[in-house]
Amino acid sequence: MVQALIFDVFGTVVDWRSSVAREAKNYFAPKGVDIDYQAFADAWRGQYQPAMERIRSGGRGYIRLDTLHRENLDVVLEDFGLSGQVPLEDRDQLNTAWEKLDPWPDSVAGLTALKKKFIIAPCSNGSIALMTRLARYGGLPWDAIAGAELARDYKPKHEVYLASAEAFNLPPSEVMMVAAHNDDLQEARAAGLKTGFFPRPKEKGPGQTTDLEAAADWDVIAENLLDLSKKMGC
Amino acid sequence: MVQALIFDVFGTVVDWRSSVAREAKNYFAPKGVDIDYQAFADAWRGQYQPAMERIRSGGRGYIRLDTLHRENLDVVLEDFGLSGQVPLEDRDQLNTAWEKLDPWPDSVAGLTALKKKFIIAPCSNGSIALMTRLARYGGLPWDAIAGAELARDYKPKHEVYLASAEAFNLPPSEVMMVAAHNDDLQEARAAGLKTGFFPRPKEKGPGQTTDLEAAADWDVIAENLLDLSKKMGC
Repeated sequence: MVQALIFDVFGTVVDWRSSVAREAKNYFAPKGVDIDYQAFADAWRGQYQPAMERIRSGGRGYIRLDTLHRENLDVVLEDFGLSGQVPLEDRDQLNTAWEKLDPWPDSVAGLTALKKKFIIAPCSNGSIALMTRLARYGGLPWDAIAGAELARDYKPKHEVYLASAEAFNLPPSEVMMVAAHNDDLQEARAAGLKTGFFPRPKEKGPGQTTDLEAAADWDVIAENLLDLSKKMGC
Repeated sequence: MVQALIFDVFGTVVDWRSSVAREAKNYFAPKGVDIDYQAFADAWRGQYQPAMERIRSGGRGYIRLDTLHRENLDVVLEDFGLSGQVPLEDRDQLNTAWEKLDPWPDSVAGLTALKKKFIIAPCSNGSIALMTRLARYGGLPWDAIAGAELARDYKPKHEVYLASAEAFNLPPSEVMMVAAHNDDLQEARAAGLKTGFFPRPKEKGPGQTTDLEAAADWDVIAENLLDLSKKMGC
């Protein structure tokens, strides 16, 4: 009955932490700046939920994640005492780190297999522009870009899942949300979608303690994206 | 300077007329109905502009093209005296003819070449759902789906071109609208986009008299989509 699979992207399909750390190192190391790049990536990502929450709560109109990332970069540079070393004209470029996130090793193979049978699309909080550039960088073979920008709101607001199903002219029950995050799936299920889970135990680094396993009886539970494609009959 | 190419689809990338005629024949011929299938396709397409015009003019809120096609099917069946022979439950299925349009012979090769260098996306009056299914049917390697649904309005309203450029976070001057229709390009240029033209002299059948050549000094003028890719340095 499932016609389309829609995916969380940051963490589920791509390894944001190592990639953002690498991009930060590529920028800072030649300047002789020596910081903990993983911590820099964590701090930048740490601003993600608070920035979206202002929009989800209605305190601010919809602003694309690209702009939120750029605003958050200013905060993180200040926190790391690096504001004086990154001229404004470099910051937009550094912000494109989020467009250069490596897929996990099984992601492209899994998506390619699933695409033969199902519509596949991101259902990310990233914008159409960001998801498009990320797909081109990593060779992610999406059929289309769904997600936050279609709803002009942010997950886990149900509007985002529902707008993504609606974009494909499908009822929520014929769309499966796939994520390595239990809380994302909890809200997708509450919105009426099917759910698919696999863990990404290194997303948050070697000390990760969350989302190491399925926290509920999701419709499909797999080892990784490639394994999910097999469990979906691809 | 051009970063993205966005495409008219019906006529420019795919051959709607022959394909809709074929789908109509596949449905009617086994029932012993003998009509001019090309004329049926032309009549169905003939309802396209009037249906959109009610929305462009503000007389009706945004309704996806899939629904307009479905409404128009009722009109055309009535005009052909076929209303009694097509039960309601068959009409939704017949409406999916618009998801099964063959690409012109050079389209996939041209898009594949262009994709190596540019973001490519449809900027069609078709919905995200329709463009997604059409891409899957014909193997069109879009990076993302832009067009009417992002603006919730219809070309040639400038909002559609501008929303498509904005979706990629690009100024209109860095986006090229590609079409086999001079009027589409005229409005895209007026909206600030670059323009690319090639003719599709058989789109409207053997007697086509319009859009046989470029009617203005479009930024790129080519023989077909594959030739356009070469002229764009791909």
